[in-house]
Amino acid sequence: MAVHQLTPLPEQYSYVFGERAPLLSVRPGDIIEVSTEDCFGGRVTNPQDVPSQIVPFNELNPVSGPIEVVGAEPGDLLAVHFVSIVPARQYAISSTFPLFGALSATHETAMLHEPLEERVWFYDIDLDAWTATFRAKNSDYALALPLDPMHGTVGVAPAGGEVRLVVTPSTHGGNMDTPEARAGTTLYLPVNVAGAMLSLGDGHARQGEGEVCGTGLESAMNSVIALDLIKGGASAWPRLENDEFIMSTGSARPLEDAFRISQKDLVSWASDLTGLDTLDAYQLVSQMGLAPAANVCDPNYTMVAKLPKWTLKDAQAYGGVHSRLRAAAAEYTAAQ
Amino acid sequence: MAVHQLTPLPEQYSYVFGERAPLLSVRPGDIIEVSTEDCFGGRVTNPQDVPSQIVPFNELNPVSGPIEVVGAEPGDLLAVHFVSIVPARQYAISSTFPLFGALSATHETAMLHEPLEERVWFYDIDLDAWTATFRAKNSDYALALPLDPMHGTVGVAPAGGEVRLVVTPSTHGGNMDTPEARAGTTLYLPVNVAGAMLSLGDGHARQGEGEVCGTGLESAMNSVIALDLIKGGASAWPRLENDEFIMSTGSARPLEDAFRISQKDLVSWASDLTGLDTLDAYQLVSQMGLAPAANVCDPNYTMVAKLPKWTLKDAQAYGGVHSRLRAAAAEYTAAQ
Amino acid sequence: MAVHQLTPLPEQYSYVFGERAPLLSVRPGDIIEVSTEDCFGGRVTNPQDVPSQIVPFNELNPVSGPIEVVGAEPGDLLAVHFVSIVPARQYAISSTFPLFGALSATHETAMLHEPLEERVWFYDIDLDAWTATFRAKNSDYALALPLDPMHGTVGVAPAGGEVRLVVTPSTHGGNMDTPEARAGTTLYLPVNVAGAMLSLGDGHARQGEGEVCGTGLESAMNSVIALDLIKGGASAWPRLENDEFIMSTGSARPLEDAFRISQKDLVSWASDLTGLDTLDAYQLVSQMGLAPAANVCDPNYTMVAKLPKWTLKDAQAYGGVHSRLRAAAAEYTAAQ
Amino acid sequence: MAVHQLTPLPEQYSYVFGERAPLLSVRPGDIIEVSTEDCFGGRVTNPQDVPSQIVPFNELNPVSGPIEVVGAEPGDLLAVHFVSIVPARQYAISSTFPLFGALSATHETAMLHEPLEERVWFYDIDLDAWTATFRAKNSDYALALPLDPMHGTVGVAPAGGEVRLVVTPSTHGGNMDTPEARAGTTLYLPVNVAGAMLSLGDGHARQGEGEVCGTGLESAMNSVIALDLIKGGASAWPRLENDEFIMSTGSARPLEDAFRISQKDLVSWASDLTGLDTLDAYQLVSQMGLAPAANVCDPNYTMVAKLPKWTLKDAQAYGGVHSRLRAAAAEYTAAQ
Repeated sequence: MAVHQLTPLPEQYSYVFGERAPLLSVRPGDIIEVSTEDCFGGRVTNPQDVPSQIVPFNELNPVSGPIEVVGAEPGDLLAVHFVSIVPARQYAISSTFPLFGALSATHETAMLHEPLEERVWFYDIDLDAWTATFRAKNSDYALALPLDPMHGTVGVAPAGGEVRLVVTPSTHGGNMDTPEARAGTTLYLPVNVAGAMLSLGDGHARQGEGEVCGTGLESAMNSVIALDLIKGGASAWPRLENDEFIMSTGSARPLEDAFRISQKDLVSWASDLTGLDTLDAYQLVSQMGLAPAANVCDPNYTMVAKLPKWTLKDAQAYGGVHSRLRAAAAEYTAAQ
Repeated sequence: MAVHQLTPLPEQYSYVFGERAPLLSVRPGDIIEVSTEDCFGGRVTNPQDVPSQIVPFNELNPVSGPIEVVGAEPGDLLAVHFVSIVPARQYAISSTFPLFGALSATHETAMLHEPLEERVWFYDIDLDAWTATFRAKNSDYALALPLDPMHGTVGVAPAGGEVRLVVTPSTHGGNMDTPEARAGTTLYLPVNVAGAMLSLGDGHARQGEGEVCGTGLESAMNSVIALDLIKGGASAWPRLENDEFIMSTGSARPLEDAFRISQKDLVSWASDLTGLDTLDAYQLVSQMGLAPAANVCDPNYTMVAKLPKWTLKDAQAYGGVHSRLRAAAAEYTAAQ
Repeated sequence: MAVHQLTPLPEQYSYVFGERAPLLSVRPGDIIEVSTEDCFGGRVTNPQDVPSQIVPFNELNPVSGPIEVVGAEPGDLLAVHFVSIVPARQYAISSTFPLFGALSATHETAMLHEPLEERVWFYDIDLDAWTATFRAKNSDYALALPLDPMHGTVGVAPAGGEVRLVVTPSTHGGNMDTPEARAGTTLYLPVNVAGAMLSLGDGHARQGEGEVCGTGLESAMNSVIALDLIKGGASAWPRLENDEFIMSTGSARPLEDAFRISQKDLVSWASDLTGLDTLDAYQLVSQMGLAPAANVCDPNYTMVAKLPKWTLKDAQAYGGVHSRLRAAAAEYTAAQ
Repeated sequence: MAVHQLTPLPEQYSYVFGERAPLLSVRPGDIIEVSTEDCFGGRVTNPQDVPSQIVPFNELNPVSGPIEVVGAEPGDLLAVHFVSIVPARQYAISSTFPLFGALSATHETAMLHEPLEERVWFYDIDLDAWTATFRAKNSDYALALPLDPMHGTVGVAPAGGEVRLVVTPSTHGGNMDTPEARAGTTLYLPVNVAGAMLSLGDGHARQGEGEVCGTGLESAMNSVIALDLIKGGASAWPRLENDEFIMSTGSARPLEDAFRISQKDLVSWASDLTGLDTLDAYQLVSQMGLAPAANVCDPNYTMVAKLPKWTLKDAQAYGGVHSRLRAAAAEYTAAQ
C-alpha cells in the first residue's frame, strides 16, 4: 500500500474542477494524506472579519488537487474512501453570506430585499471531547455540538471539456455538501477524463442537512483517503456507500429534480444489484428508502437517496470494493 | 380520561377537509379509538384489481372524521398524540397509479409520455413478527420489511371557508405523508374553525421518505389518539414532536419552497424556545437540523425539518404537552 | 337575447369559488351586465390607506356571482365572452403587499427578510383618452398608460366538492390574472357542477405580463359578458380564444409546470382541430406558439400558450362559438 | 468601418464558451460577416437520419468563434448588433431528441418513462417568399410559416475561468434561445475576460416562444453583426434592445427564478434610465412589461422581460449605442 502526502502551497489551491495540471499522481489502491483549507481559504481569522469583504466569491472553497489516478479513463468509476477527516485548527467558522443560503434572496432567486446581516460564528474545536462549541452572538447561549467531520466538495474533472467553479455540484461531484461524506464512507465518482483528476476540500466539522444558512462549521482538515477504480463501472451521477446504506445523489434545480435524479439512480442501482425489474425496484425503494437533503443553498441543490444494504440480500456493490477499502483503511490506521 | 370510539360506516367517510358535520364530539384530554380505511377505501381486494378503474380519483384517501374538539377556536393549536397505530387487515397494498408518483409524468408535470404501468403489490402483514412481506411481481424476490405504521393524512378544517380534497396537504395539515406521524409522536395543527374538526386516515404499514412511487403500504388501521389543546398557540404550519425531536413541516411546490417553509418555521420555533435571536437560531438549525423528505408526489410536496430537543436545553414546547400526552398514553395502554 | 343585470350588494360579494347559492340564473345565449368591485373591496380610497391594514387577506378579491347557467352539467364547457369591460371609477389603485409579489419573499418562498415597503399608487382614469396616469411616489415622473381592461379572476365551482379562496387559480379558472381576458375574447371553463356557478371580479385597468408586483391597476368594473355552453366539451384546463389566437392556460408551481400544462393542452387542442398526430402538433406548436406569463405572484402561477388560428387552416374551435358570441356582442352593442 | 469575414473550417467550430484561442480579432465599431452551422453540425442531411445516433450530445450546437474584441476588459459591456441573419441552406431541420424538450422526461427531470419518439422534420426554405414549409409526418398537413431568423446561441467567455458547454445559457449569454435575437436587435453581453471572446451559432429560421420540443427550425446561417463596446458598463445578465423595447434576460431553474432574474434586472435598468426609485420602477415594469418565455428546454431555462422604450421618455440606453449600430448597419447594407 503506497501512501502519498498532498499539502498544497497557498498558490497551489484550485478554484475549479477541470483543466488543471495534477499536483500528485497515484495508482488505484493507494492512500493519500491530504490537507485541505477551509472554504474561506484560511483568510477569516477572527470574528470581526467580514467574509464577503475578505474573500472574493470566485475564491471561496479552494480545493486540494487535482490528483491524477493512473489508469483511470472515461467510463470508469473512481472509488474514494474517506479513511479519516480531522479538523486541523482549534476553531471552525460559520457565517451567513450576502445573497446566499436557503432562507435568503440570492442571485438566482432574485428579489428586491436588502441582503440579510452577514454574521460570523467561531466554534472552538475540542478534538479530545470531539465537540465544537456554538456560542450565540446576541445572547449568552452556548452549546457543545458533536463533531461529525466531512468534506463538502469532492469531485473530478467534468465531461465535455467543461471547467466548473468548485461551488456548483453536478455529475462530476463537486460541492454536494452532504454530511454523508464522512470517514468510513466510500464516494463513487464517474470518470470523465484520463486520470480522473480528483480534488477535494470544503471540510465541515459538522453540518446539518440542507446546509440551510449556506455554511457548515468550515474547517481546514487533515484527511486520509484511499482510492480504487472500477473499470467500466461509471454511473451517471455520484454515489456513496457506507456499512449500512447504498446512496445515490442528484444535484439540480428545482429541488424536486435533484430528488428525482437521486431516486431514479437508486432505483436503477437497486435493480442492477437485485435483478428486480424497474417497477419492482421502484417499489422497494419507495418503501425502504431515506431521502435527506444535502444542500439547498448551492447553485445546484443536492438530494441523497439511501437504501439499507440488507434489502439487497447478498448483493455487493461493485464486487465489494467498499469492504476492501474499509479493510485497507483499518490496516493503514493500525500502522500509524 | 374519557375514551371514545369512532368507527365510521362506509357512507360516513369524508373525502375533504372542511364544512362537514362532526361524527364525534370530544374534549381536550380525551382519547379516541378510531378505525380508518386504506387509501383505496378498502375496494382493492386482490392483486388483479386495477386501482384506477375501481376507485375514482376524488374517492381516494377516505378520512375518519371530522371530530369536533369542544372549546377549540381559531388561533388555538390542537395537539394530536398517536398512542398506537395498528394495521387492521392481514395485508397492505401498494401500487403505482397512472400520472402519479415522483418518477412519473403527472397532471401538473404534464408530458407527452404514456402513463407508466399500473402495478399492484400485496404485502402480507404479520403483527407478531411486526413485518410486511414484499414480493416482487416480475421475479421471485421476497423480503420481510419491518412495520412502522403511520397516518399519511391528518388534518383540520382549513381557514377562510375553504374545503380541500384530502389529497392536498397545506397549512391545515392533510395528506403530508410523513413517516414521522407514528405512534409516540404528537402532531400540532393550527385551529381554523370552532371545534377544529379533526379527520385522519391513509394509514401506511410503512413508507419510505418521499413516498416516491405515490403510495406506501396502504393499510386500514385501528388507531388510538389522545388530544389536547394549546389555547392561543397556533403556529402557521403543522409541527410534530417526539421524545427526541421538535419538527416543522412545509407543504408547497416547488420542493425548495416546502423546504424553506419548514426551515423558517423551525428557526422561528427554536428562537421562541431558546431566546436566540433569528440569525443565531438560523445558525443552530443549520448545523444541527435534519431535513428528510415526507412526500414528493402529492399536489403539494412536504418537507420536514427536525431539531434534537437536547439543543434546546431545558426549554419545553408548549409547556410540556407532549410529555403529558405520553404519560396519558401510557396510562391508557396500561389499562387495556 | 335575454339581458340580465347583476349588481351585488356589499354583503353579497363572495370570496370563494364553490358551494355558494347563485345570485342570478341565466341560460346559454344570455347576456349579463355585471358590476365588480376592485380587489380591495373598494375599501382603499386614498393613497394614505395601507391595504394590508384595511383588508384582511381572506377578503381580497371579492367576486360577483355565482351565476347559475341553466343546463350546464359536469363535462360541459362554459364559454364566457367578454363583450366590454369598463373601469367604474375615476381611479385605479396598485400597491405592493407584504409577502406578496414575484420579487418578494412570500408565505411559500419563505425567507428571513423583512417585508418590502407597502406602497400605494393611485392612477387617474380618463375614459375619453382611454388612459390611466402613473405617478411615481418618490420622484416627479408621470406617464399616461393606455387602458387595456381585463378581469383577473373568472371561474366556476371546483370539482370534487372543493371550495377555494378566489386568490388561487386552478382547473376551475379563478385568479389567473392574464391580460388576455379582455373584451373581444372568449374564455372557456370546464363545468364541474350543475349550473357551472360562474363568478368574476378583480378587474384591472391594465396589467403587465406576470403581474410582477402582485397587483395590476385594480379597478371596479362595469362589464358585459355573453355566455354559451358546449355540451360535453369540457377541457382539462381553462382555454381562451380571440380573433387571432387559440390559447391554453396552466396554473401550477413551479412555473415550468404551469408552462408544461399550458403547452400540452395546446398541443392536444391543435391536434384535435387539425388531425395532426401528437408529435406533429407538438412540432407546430413549438415553432408557431407564443408563451407569455400571466401571473407569477399568486398561489399558483399561470402561463398562457397561444397559437395563431391561421395555422389551423379551416378548423374552428367548438363549431365557431367564438364567432357567434362575437356577433351577439356586436348586436348587443349596436342596440345600446 | 472595417468588415471582417469568419467562415470556420469544420475542425474550427467550438462546443464550449471559454478558454479557446480566437479565430478572429476585431475592434469596436467593426462589422463581421460570419457563417454558422446548424445545431447538428450539418451532419443531419435527410429525414431518415436519426440525430441522436449521428451527433454526440457534446457536439451539438457548434459555435463560430471566439472573436476577440480588442480593448474589451472585464467590467465592460459588449454590444452585438444583428445586421442580418439569412438561412444558408434550402432546408431547415427540426426534431425531437431523446430526453430533451419541455414535454419530455429529461436527464434532470428524471423519470421512468421510455423516451418519446425521435422524429425529424425537414422544412423547405424559400428566401424569396420568406417562408419555411412545415410538412406533418403522419398526415398530409403542410403549411408555409413566415421566416423569422435568429441566433439561439450567442455568448462570451464566462467569468472565473469557467468553460461551459454551449448548451447551457447563463450570465455569459450562450444558448438563451430567444426569438428576440433577430436582425435589427442589439444584444448586450457583460465582458468577463480580456477580448470578450464572442461566439455565436445555433441559427433558427424561426422558433416559437419556449422552444417547446427542444429545437427550432435549425439552420446554418450567413449572418452579419456589428460590434461596439460600452466601457465599464457591464450588467449582471445579458440584455437586448430593439427599436421598441429594452429587454432583460434571466437563465436559471426553476423557471420562476429565470423570471425573477429578468424582472429584477429590468426594474434596475428602468430605474437607472428614468431616475425612478426601485419600488416606483417595480410598479412601472409591473404594469407595462411583457414576459415571454425564451427556452424551457435547455439546462437553464430563459425568460425575457420587455419594457416599451416610450415609457422611458427621453432616456437612451448606453448613450444611444443601439441607434448608432442601427445606422452603421444601414450604411453597411446600403454599400452591398
